[in-house]
Amino acid sequence: MDEDVLYHLDLGTKTHDLPAMFGDVKFVCVGGSPKRMRAFAQFMHKELGLEGDGEDLADICAGTDRYAMYRVGPLLSISHGMGIPSVSIMLHELIKLLHHAKCRDVTIIRIGTSGGLGVQAGSVVITDRAVDACFQPRFEQVVLGDVVVRGTDLDGGLVEELLACSKATPDFPTLVGHTMCTYDFYEGKTCFGCPSPELSVQPVLRAAAVPRCVRVSSERSAPLERPLQIPALSQAKSSSADRMCVHLAPRYIRSVTRMAGTAVGGGGAMGELGGCYLAQLWHGSVGG
Amino acid sequence: MDEDVLYHLDLGTKTHDLPAMFGDVKFVCVGGSPKRMRAFAQFMHKELGLEGDGEDLADICAGTDRYAMYRVGPLLSISHGMGIPSVSIMLHELIKLLHHAKCRDVTIIRIGTSGGLGVQAGSVVITDRAVDACFQPRFEQVVLGDVVVRGTDLDGGLVEELLACSKATPDFPTLVGHTMCTYDFYEGKTCFGCPSPELSVQPVLRAAAVPRCVRVSSERSAPLERPLQIPALSQAKSSSADRMCVHLAPRYIRSVTRMAGTAVGGGGAMGELGGCYLAQLWHGSVGG
Repeated sequence: MDEDVLYHLDLGTKTHDLPAMFGDVKFVCVGGSPKRMRAFAQFMHKELGLEGDGEDLADICAGTDRYAMYRVGPLLSISHGMGIPSVSIMLHELIKLLHHAKCRDVTIIRIGTSGGLGVQAGSVVITDRAVDACFQPRFEQVVLGDVVVRGTDLDGGLVEELLACSKATPDFPTLVGHTMCTYDFYEGKTCFGCPSPELSVQPVLRAAAVPRCVRVSSERSAPLERPLQIPALSQAKSSSADRMCVHLAPRYIRSVTRMAGTAVGGGGAMGELGGCYLAQLWHGSVGG
Repeated sequence: MDEDVLYHLDLGTKTHDLPAMFGDVKFVCVGGSPKRMRAFAQFMHKELGLEGDGEDLADICAGTDRYAMYRVGPLLSISHGMGIPSVSIMLHELIKLLHHAKCRDVTIIRIGTSGGLGVQAGSVVITDRAVDACFQPRFEQVVLGDVVVRGTDLDGGLVEELLACSKATPDFPTLVGHTMCTYDFYEGKTCFGCPSPELSVQPVLRAAAVPRCVRVSSERSAPLERPLQIPALSQAKSSSADRMCVHLAPRYIRSVTRMAGTAVGGGGAMGELGGCYLAQLWHGSVGG
């Protein structure tokens, strides 16, 4: 095409030199909150040993208030808002961005908080497979009036690498498991924001029938599926983003609606932990 | 319940005096972008003839970066991000907020831009019914593993009132029609961001079989359905929010991805137009 406007990122092929800006990006971390992804970028700035204190990091997407994007060394840290559709828009344009920038061997990881089922509060879960609101390993999307069904398995090699990284931080319980992804935060995840034992117990029981289903999230399927569901981007997927979207996602507390606001910490500790793993991956890849 | 934390709004029943803050709210306007909803609030500040210039409006949800909320006179202006799940979280907590604040006779209107089918660019469409990605007037949600189907008709009286308001602004073509709501911005709405005539023509042809389906959006069904799909809030729906979620939504241009960034204007003119209608409704209701 003559010009590709990545509208929600405030970037474009005619307005920006994308290969110069992003061509050497190797890791992309995505998460919901703009402030959290800025804090994560600043943490990574220090973790990667870059010059300066990272306090003056500029939002590359400052011209829009849809998403925020920060770059530190080989890493992009991008917010994606809440819910699959919001993630999908960002990821659609991100994959195009990596394609236009001629990136190679990119690893994309979502980091975020979530509810948990039967795991210790504060655990880190590395997702190996997403399941939908009916606990099925599939992602359905209507395309041109037809329902398209896609699989939801993640990069097994990256799962193992992240799990290996966790050995260096034994104070955070880390495990591999499935993640349930819903289209609704309250009813879909059975988080009504009020005590309702008879309602809340059911998904736990259902989940028990699904081996290793330990997380409940609202964004999991989208980043996983996005590179698969855009035919026009299949080349980008195979060439520039070989390892997509393994999910590093911790935190469990009974009331999800208070999760990130209370003592369990949510974003801060989550970001630091994700950063530790990522820094290990990065230093390992460059022999550092 | 002992305490209700409206987490994503950074409000709560123990931390805020919700009746004092919001008890006399009569209109709530919601839209995607935080900056846009701030600009809309400032426009309404002038339109309603309130004291001051409205430049120092404070974000009531400043403690979170999930949503932004501004109050001007009887109006709340709230951002909801992109996609049904993001809208759903906000609306779930908004309905609770109105309930806790003991609001009465509240009108909620979503204003936003969208794609259009067979209507003049720059038209305003007042939605009377939402249809899903398969053009059916229904909204499906998985609740506790079961698919729940709900209807999508809107408040006919409010549709007529808004249409009547449009007579005062004949320079904006205004019509009543259906809106298609998808879970996906690109594939779901057939906006691939690149020329693909054989793909893009199909939804137009399908839409032609649906009388008055003139809009394509990513958020339409959620605000409409939200008050219906939360059993615990049924009382709030009937008592505090009698007229829910008629949609005032304009703008059509061929490339949706560039819509709000080019000459057609998008948010600015949209907000002003919505404000004109709303000011008429408000002045009419108080005899002004």
